[in-house]
Amino acid sequence: MNTFAVKAFGTAAPEADLKPMHIERREVTSKDVEIEILYCGVCHSDLHTARNEWRGTIYPNVPGHEIVGRITKVGDAVSKFKVGDLAAVGCMVDSCRECEQCKNESEQYCEEGNIQTYNGHDKHLNQQTFGGYSERVVVDEHFVLRVPENLDLAATAPLLCAGVTTWSPLKHWEVGPGKRIGVVGIGGLGHMGVKLAKAMGAHVVVITTSPSKVDDAKRLGADEVILSTDEAQMKASANTLHFILDCVSAQHDVNAYLRLLKVDGTLALVGAPEHPLPIAPFSLIPARKNFAGSTIGSIKETQEMLDFCGEHNITADIELINMQDINTAYERLLKGQVKYRFVIDMASLKTAAN
Amino acid sequence: MNTFAVKAFGTAAPEADLKPMHIERREVTSKDVEIEILYCGVCHSDLHTARNEWRGTIYPNVPGHEIVGRITKVGDAVSKFKVGDLAAVGCMVDSCRECEQCKNESEQYCEEGNIQTYNGHDKHLNQQTFGGYSERVVVDEHFVLRVPENLDLAATAPLLCAGVTTWSPLKHWEVGPGKRIGVVGIGGLGHMGVKLAKAMGAHVVVITTSPSKVDDAKRLGADEVILSTDEAQMKASANTLHFILDCVSAQHDVNAYLRLLKVDGTLALVGAPEHPLPIAPFSLIPARKNFAGSTIGSIKETQEMLDFCGEHNITADIELINMQDINTAYERLLKGQVKYRFVIDMASLKTAAN
Repeated sequence: MNTFAVKAFGTAAPEADLKPMHIERREVTSKDVEIEILYCGVCHSDLHTARNEWRGTIYPNVPGHEIVGRITKVGDAVSKFKVGDLAAVGCMVDSCRECEQCKNESEQYCEEGNIQTYNGHDKHLNQQTFGGYSERVVVDEHFVLRVPENLDLAATAPLLCAGVTTWSPLKHWEVGPGKRIGVVGIGGLGHMGVKLAKAMGAHVVVITTSPSKVDDAKRLGADEVILSTDEAQMKASANTLHFILDCVSAQHDVNAYLRLLKVDGTLALVGAPEHPLPIAPFSLIPARKNFAGSTIGSIKETQEMLDFCGEHNITADIELINMQDINTAYERLLKGQVKYRFVIDMASLKTAAN
Repeated sequence: MNTFAVKAFGTAAPEADLKPMHIERREVTSKDVEIEILYCGVCHSDLHTARNEWRGTIYPNVPGHEIVGRITKVGDAVSKFKVGDLAAVGCMVDSCRECEQCKNESEQYCEEGNIQTYNGHDKHLNQQTFGGYSERVVVDEHFVLRVPENLDLAATAPLLCAGVTTWSPLKHWEVGPGKRIGVVGIGGLGHMGVKLAKAMGAHVVVITTSPSKVDDAKRLGADEVILSTDEAQMKASANTLHFILDCVSAQHDVNAYLRLLKVDGTLALVGAPEHPLPIAPFSLIPARKNFAGSTIGSIKETQEMLDFCGEHNITADIELINMQDINTAYERLLKGQVKYRFVIDMASLKTAAN
């Protein structure tokens, strides 16, 4: 298979800084498109993978799965895109296409495991997949999204992971008008959850440990903010929410939030704490409550979310950085010093020293 | 309000044996029926409450919420029953009737809390409710069930709690033909879960720690039995079940069972372990799995379950005891020495020494 070299930014070992490198991309096959990457969001998963914190990282590793850019080449059987179109790639670049989940347009739950945008297994080149911290990417058009022309491109990048990861559970659990929705954990994911749930017509209640986040939660669209450290507020809000989107990736007491749910309510984890969370049976049994999890979203859902964001003029709150600043950005990410997503201006990669 | 005395069996303190006593029942008001109790099942909740293991027991306590009998008196506005009819009472004798859940025929999830058959708050007499270990009970007809004439009456009693507690989640999570259903914990609840799920048309998989239960599980209707202590069997069954009914009331590793669920599968707890159960986020997130709880069932569901059992000739596997043997039965219950439910022949109460 013919390949070509592209410049990228990646890491050779768990403890190493990210630095410039070259990787190989395949020449487009009949259903592929080649995308010049203009912006790439910085997800916490990038850091976890670069540093092998989830184990299983194959080096070198090039992170990045919040990719927006412009089509530079298309295969001869491509029907969705033409050269010059805006395009985006999220967390997946392939799946088995044949299992019940894939046939049901739920590739994220592919029974063989979806092929992730980085550190997945690239079936074409029989090596690890490389992500969006790079000049170009080549992807089967099925896994490529159309981007609304009216949105700020840089601020659109985080929709590809943070956006759809919150959109998918909000849609799955039927959030909309007449529903009272809680969002816990106002970071990269949570701030998108608030914006999307509000635009979907729900009454949005942010639950936070930080008095400092109250104003910002309201600015993002929250109708109410509950301080979870205030027992009286928590008690007054017991049994009032239909659904809670839990975006906290640190250990936390889920039982306290389950108490806020109404009968048949669901709390869905999209943040992924490292250790098991203790759940009291009586947090669930007396009112048939559900503790669930959800991961990313399907290609269909991602496109619906992007179209919805285009219609409602929704993007992420971002801080634009240069590729060369990624190691500092990772340190700031660990300290929660970003409101709410770093996005890399990939033009800066061109001038990065080799 | 006029009352009359009935003989009962109850306890005066957490550590005291149950013994004969007299309690007061109200004379029927316009919507009430009076039932002569013929049989009463022995639920583990009876023991928990008699011994104040869930706290909050008001003494004296008369347990029993798996009641079948015959109508002996009806109020002037009663429309569902006439004197001489078979009738049954389960875990609830009243609810607020006005909240969203009550109006939605889900009295078990009444927002004010349903009024339990024993150790609830009797609004008529302003005292604790007394259960079925007694000669007669007086209940609003809304909370009284019709009993199919073709079933063995004694073996029907456990349907009122063990039956509907498993029926309700099986119906709620849409168990039926084409579904693969797991049942964990083959005791009073679990053995009913197997019988009902099988009769509903599902493929039933019992998961047990005990090789000694394999044959019995198959006799009850299981299509397959998995030994949870056999890692190879558990691994081979990963991602194969649509729903799991978890009837285990001891601490156990729910993550091991969550692995058996397919995408979007639910494990519902109906047993109630005392301490929190640790749930790994990655047991839920990658395949959008749900960990839920469910309690008893509505009056509508209880009637549907009884009618279904009448049609399919389903009753519990029971051991009939005399009222005087209840303290020994509790000890045997604690040791799991019953297949699968004790039922008290209430005729024996008549001869119990006062």
